[in-house]
Amino acid sequence: MGDKKILCIGLVCLDIINVVDKYPEEDTDSRCLSQRWQRGGNASNSCTVLSLLGAPCAFMGSLAPGPVADFVLNDFRLSHIDISLLLERPGCSFPASVVISNVTTGSRTILHMNRNLPDVSSEDFSKVDLSQYRWIHWEGRNAEEQVKMIQRVEEFNRRATEPERITISVEIEKTREPLYQLFQYGDVVFVSKDVAKHFGFDSAAAALKGLHSRVRKGAVLICAWAEKGADAMGPDGVVVHSDAFPPEALVDTLGAGDTFNASVIYTLSNGGSLQEALAFGCQVAGRKCGVHGYDGIVPVKAGVVVA
Amino acid sequence: MGDKKILCIGLVCLDIINVVDKYPEEDTDSRCLSQRWQRGGNASNSCTVLSLLGAPCAFMGSLAPGPVADFVLNDFRLSHIDISLLLERPGCSFPASVVISNVTTGSRTILHMNRNLPDVSSEDFSKVDLSQYRWIHWEGRNAEEQVKMIQRVEEFNRRATEPERITISVEIEKTREPLYQLFQYGDVVFVSKDVAKHFGFDSAAAALKGLHSRVRKGAVLICAWAEKGADAMGPDGVVVHSDAFPPEALVDTLGAGDTFNASVIYTLSNGGSLQEALAFGCQVAGRKCGVHGYDGIVPVKAGVVVA
Repeated sequence: MGDKKILCIGLVCLDIINVVDKYPEEDTDSRCLSQRWQRGGNASNSCTVLSLLGAPCAFMGSLAPGPVADFVLNDFRLSHIDISLLLERPGCSFPASVVISNVTTGSRTILHMNRNLPDVSSEDFSKVDLSQYRWIHWEGRNAEEQVKMIQRVEEFNRRATEPERITISVEIEKTREPLYQLFQYGDVVFVSKDVAKHFGFDSAAAALKGLHSRVRKGAVLICAWAEKGADAMGPDGVVVHSDAFPPEALVDTLGAGDTFNASVIYTLSNGGSLQEALAFGCQVAGRKCGVHGYDGIVPVKAGVVVA
Repeated sequence: MGDKKILCIGLVCLDIINVVDKYPEEDTDSRCLSQRWQRGGNASNSCTVLSLLGAPCAFMGSLAPGPVADFVLNDFRLSHIDISLLLERPGCSFPASVVISNVTTGSRTILHMNRNLPDVSSEDFSKVDLSQYRWIHWEGRNAEEQVKMIQRVEEFNRRATEPERITISVEIEKTREPLYQLFQYGDVVFVSKDVAKHFGFDSAAAALKGLHSRVRKGAVLICAWAEKGADAMGPDGVVVHSDAFPPEALVDTLGAGDTFNASVIYTLSNGGSLQEALAFGCQVAGRKCGVHGYDGIVPVKAGVVVA
């Protein structure tokens, strides 16, 4: 089981990050302080963090060939992420998400591309050898297909003995109705502040209490709330909380949520408690907000922190 | 002389053009209607238009290797632009300019990268075989170096017989003090509306009258003023004017100025009058504003229009 990987399924894209000290006004020319290309996408970012934490991990998602794909593939390799499940989609375009990162306010404005890349289908997923994975995480996207994939893993789990059982987690980040069916799947459900607010909740604890009836019995529901930290509710119905660990200076919040998710998955997959997972998630996400990108977000040898 | 090329010296960059129907508010996620990568930079754009008009042309500028360079080089080739004078700068980064193009308002907001690419130097230019060119156009950038390059061409012209003489043009687009020394160089000087307004003029005609003393005797000064058309003043001191030729729908104004410059250079280099050059410049620039990119901006076989 020690060699089994954590698989994250979802998006990889190119983020073109433009660092400014003032958000540009419409119809002006301005100069950014710096610009960098970064492999992005929620599932892809979570893989980056899992890998930095020392967990063997794999990414599954679609990629269109071209100059951007070369950059992205090389970056996956540098991060030691298994990309054997990457799906090449010839004829598709691989545009970039533009991120305007304001160092004065810490805001990040994202202009998503209109992708014509098909998401991973349950047909694609049917070819995956499940015995290689101990945890599979889905970034909520094409929910109908993702439900079928999860059901395949549930079926696998029913036949498996305990050590072979795969933990299932899902992330519901975007306020899109079809994604909400994912609440009832998975052992661990991450719900975003955005979605919680969309349901009318004004705190993580309120969201957990209000949304807990949507998750299946025995599941864990987790909600991070930026500078307010994060809350989680386990099968016992008790809400646990961790405060945020804000960095000295807020530099770059892009990917902070993906970092939180990865750090929680990492801790839980290593037998840590929910309280430990939340605290570690907030700690690593906080460090991430203090640096550009992901370098240096792991404070000490990760295993020591959660052991 | 028929085979001699028009050389444009200046910037090539990657424009990542994000088409939106609403300018994004700070700290939001939004989706663009479409996205495209386009070779950009003033001198590079003017080459695109010259080539579309049927003029043999060449580009001189710096390029950093990498995936973006591959895209840009391929696009130069598709446009039949001579890039034998392209300077590869290993170790430099090749970031992209982000353009947010609003179809509702026609506005284009540009976020320029912070380039670490050195511009073309007079040392680089000293190796150029001038006998291949009939016109050399400088996009005003590193003015001190550009003055030295122009002086080399002036020296060449002094020794040349009339048919070998190279016409010199400069563009002063940005409101940067060092660029203003370029006014006194060149046979044709393009000054932007931005610069004219910076000097306190509120129309193209006023700018020509006010700035004409800065150009050398015998030179032509040209100022385009968006939807107000363009004005020019020749050695005789008479101001000529062309109205704009607005497209039915304003779609994309990015590169309209570069299109105007190229069309004016094209006409003058083929013996057209200043009035003809202005009219053709406004006509092609107007068509450019009605399309994304440059496809279809040349209405009829170019030679017929200006003949």
